[in-house]
Amino acid sequence: MEFLVRFETTLPDSMSADQAQQLKSQERARAMELRQEGTLKRLWRIPGRRAVVGLWEADDATELHDALASLPQFPWMEVSVEPLATHPQER
Amino acid sequence: MEFLVRFETTLPDSMSADQAQQLKSQERARAMELRQEGTLKRLWRIPGRRAVVGLWEADDATELHDALASLPQFPWMEVSVEPLATHPQER
Amino acid sequence: MEFLVRFETTLPDSMSADQAQQLKSQERARAMELRQEGTLKRLWRIPGRRAVVGLWEADDATELHDALASLPQFPWMEVSVEPLATHPQER
Amino acid sequence: MEFLVRFETTLPDSMSADQAQQLKSQERARAMELRQEGTLKRLWRIPGRRAVVGLWEADDATELHDALASLPQFPWMEVSVEPLATHPQER
Amino acid sequence: MEFLVRFETTLPDSMSADQAQQLKSQERARAMELRQEGTLKRLWRIPGRRAVVGLWEADDATELHDALASLPQFPWMEVSVEPLATHPQER
Amino acid sequence: MEFLVRFETTLPDSMSADQAQQLKSQERARAMELRQEGTLKRLWRIPGRRAVVGLWEADDATELHDALASLPQFPWMEVSVEPLATHPQER
Amino acid sequence: MEFLVRFETTLPDSMSADQAQQLKSQERARAMELRQEGTLKRLWRIPGRRAVVGLWEADDATELHDALASLPQFPWMEVSVEPLATHPQER
Amino acid sequence: MEFLVRFETTLPDSMSADQAQQLKSQERARAMELRQEGTLKRLWRIPGRRAVVGLWEADDATELHDALASLPQFPWMEVSVEPLATHPQER
Amino acid sequence: MEFLVRFETTLPDSMSADQAQQLKSQERARAMELRQEGTLKRLWRIPGRRAVVGLWEADDATELHDALASLPQFPWMEVSVEPLATHPQER
Amino acid sequence: MEFLVRFETTLPDSMSADQAQQLKSQERARAMELRQEGTLKRLWRIPGRRAVVGLWEADDATELHDALASLPQFPWMEVSVEPLATHPQER
Repeated sequence: MEFLVRFETTLPDSMSADQAQQLKSQERARAMELRQEGTLKRLWRIPGRRAVVGLWEADDATELHDALASLPQFPWMEVSVEPLATHPQER
Repeated sequence: MEFLVRFETTLPDSMSADQAQQLKSQERARAMELRQEGTLKRLWRIPGRRAVVGLWEADDATELHDALASLPQFPWMEVSVEPLATHPQER
Repeated sequence: MEFLVRFETTLPDSMSADQAQQLKSQERARAMELRQEGTLKRLWRIPGRRAVVGLWEADDATELHDALASLPQFPWMEVSVEPLATHPQER
Repeated sequence: MEFLVRFETTLPDSMSADQAQQLKSQERARAMELRQEGTLKRLWRIPGRRAVVGLWEADDATELHDALASLPQFPWMEVSVEPLATHPQER
Repeated sequence: MEFLVRFETTLPDSMSADQAQQLKSQERARAMELRQEGTLKRLWRIPGRRAVVGLWEADDATELHDALASLPQFPWMEVSVEPLATHPQER
Repeated sequence: MEFLVRFETTLPDSMSADQAQQLKSQERARAMELRQEGTLKRLWRIPGRRAVVGLWEADDATELHDALASLPQFPWMEVSVEPLATHPQER
Repeated sequence: MEFLVRFETTLPDSMSADQAQQLKSQERARAMELRQEGTLKRLWRIPGRRAVVGLWEADDATELHDALASLPQFPWMEVSVEPLATHPQER
Repeated sequence: MEFLVRFETTLPDSMSADQAQQLKSQERARAMELRQEGTLKRLWRIPGRRAVVGLWEADDATELHDALASLPQFPWMEVSVEPLATHPQER
Repeated sequence: MEFLVRFETTLPDSMSADQAQQLKSQERARAMELRQEGTLKRLWRIPGRRAVVGLWEADDATELHDALASLPQFPWMEVSVEPLATHPQER
Repeated sequence: MEFLVRFETTLPDSMSADQAQQLKSQERARAMELRQEGTLKRLWRIPGRRAVVGLWEADDATELHDALASLPQFPWMEVSVEPLATHPQER
């Protein structure tokens, strides 16, 4: 099942530039793993914002939540999830 | 996978009382079938409104859409769907 | 450039079932052409609604508007368009 | 009477990891008591968020408030409550 | 249990002045009965609108819904219900 | 003239438990005075929130503002005021 | 006591141009009376809209409602009322 | 003074194709006059919608309103106006 | 040209009571100057809030912005501006 | 392709007046470069706010994002982007 997932990340001001840089590297690495597993299928940036919208695939909302929560930046992400149904033209 | 589904039904004024009555009977009958199949698990009324909130179970959003679209009143229902993940306390 | 386009179609009650059926066939045919041209890349259904969300590609917003306006159901569609930027992970 | 209760918990950054861990254990323990009393009937996680939606039963809004306020994380919870009426199909 | 109930009534243009007048008399009569039963405790008008806010008392949301649905104008009322808990200062 | 007044109080984290306790006692004392004067007529708690809704009586919005501003917690209260007109059924 | 009152008037399509014209004359006449009584103190047009915002004075919300309801176009007006308190700089 | 003006036009279903076509020609003609006068400076289409956003110049909101109200489609336009101040970089 | 201007002031917790008091005196003094110049014509308090709504007059939005920005509390004010057109009844 | 871009900048309280001043100079310098390149075409101030709305031109949303992200104040800007299509009257 596919989901449209939108999130915006706000790292706290108290985080050092080094910590932030390291976190971003870890985020990228984990995202790459999720892509290889087929969980994260596409990712776009919302222009002008520190926000992305992505196309995810998971068995259900529980598996999707676990994938999202495995992202190192998850504690600082504001996430919204929209379930998608297959369109008749694509069946 | 479970979904929280909210809908409010507004039959058009042009529908006769007989047609509306027949439609409601058909709706009830189809809802009962969906309950027996385990697709529709609980249904509550929002007090003061012609609206309900229900707990549904389906393999994915496509199967859920097909179940909702099988309701005779579907053309006059305003529906919103919220995907639910299993809470760790219930795993 | 890619766009996320969401629309919900509400045909007027005054339209006959035949007219509606013919319009839907024409809509499907035009959508297929837009897919073959690469303008319409993916289409999902929002569960429980007469609404879709789609991934479109066009040179710019003007070309996108012309593609949307070429859909036979366009006069009855409520449309919203979100521009997408390429995510660094996909460059 | 049943209520649909939605809450999102945001522990302050100033809380140590130990305090947060202890609070979560206490929360889980109190939630278990409320389940055994029949006050908390079901709990789901909103995917991608530190939020839950639950089905609660209480005599009235006052008893429900007291149950919610007995949760150790209550001071950091943003709560919304929706009263539910019995649906005729379930009477 | 007390509820704050807000509603705005919009009679359809197709209703004759006589029908509307008769409906309003019936509404007033039923409201008076609900007052005598203690279900409807106070009623205020929202200035400038065909809307009222009222203080209602019922055992639960189901009983409240049945009281609201017994109002002759219920089919044309847009209703919202807010559950109220007893304030500690009033216990 | 009556007003429906809704407020939610958020004491700052920097306030000590003692200060908060003292403030709450002072708040209760002032609220009691306002009740005796007939300015504060009823108070309900919004279930699950640190918020209340109350029925107030004052000559006008200026007198109401002065009463609200006399509450010791006023600097930390988010307030909204709704003017109420007498309903014809209560004249 | 002063109130800021905003309203937008939408006459139904079924009203003839003559009826609409007559109604507007009556509206203007009644507004002039309310100005002479001191109830309607100022009136502005929201640019681009069939909407106005006005400064009204009335003893309380009940008197204000009666003044608004005395306007011939009242049945077709969408009204919102905001109570105003005297600013300390103007006392 | 410049204004950002957004409007969406919805011609009623009861209008014949001929009337609509004639109205659109008149609209285009009047818009051209407003461009030549310097009142209408730029016009963009919101992609996917029967809506435009435009840059207008007028002495004040009254003159702007008169210009907008002179458009033949004004009775069917939903308009919102945003006043613009000169940016220091452009002074 | 007249504008309806609404603002709410939130001084930071880190500001000392002395600084806040001094700022308020300066604010009052500057507001008085703006009144004498005819820029600030009326000011009302929104009951229950640290917010005001005022009637301002300025040649255009740029002059209005400069007047608002000259208020000593401007850095801590959340402002919204609504342009007003002259109503035909007041021409 | 043109975009309407709205942003509001909120520098943190912890930034010194010197740092803020330097950042603003750098912002102005970078904005001037973007104007010379033809990326930033017009800029207006929203009266009463630390916000601007601008007309930008870029090949696509990715190029627009890169231009916005090149502004020194970008980390403290809340940005929203609206794609614009060419209006038939301007083709």
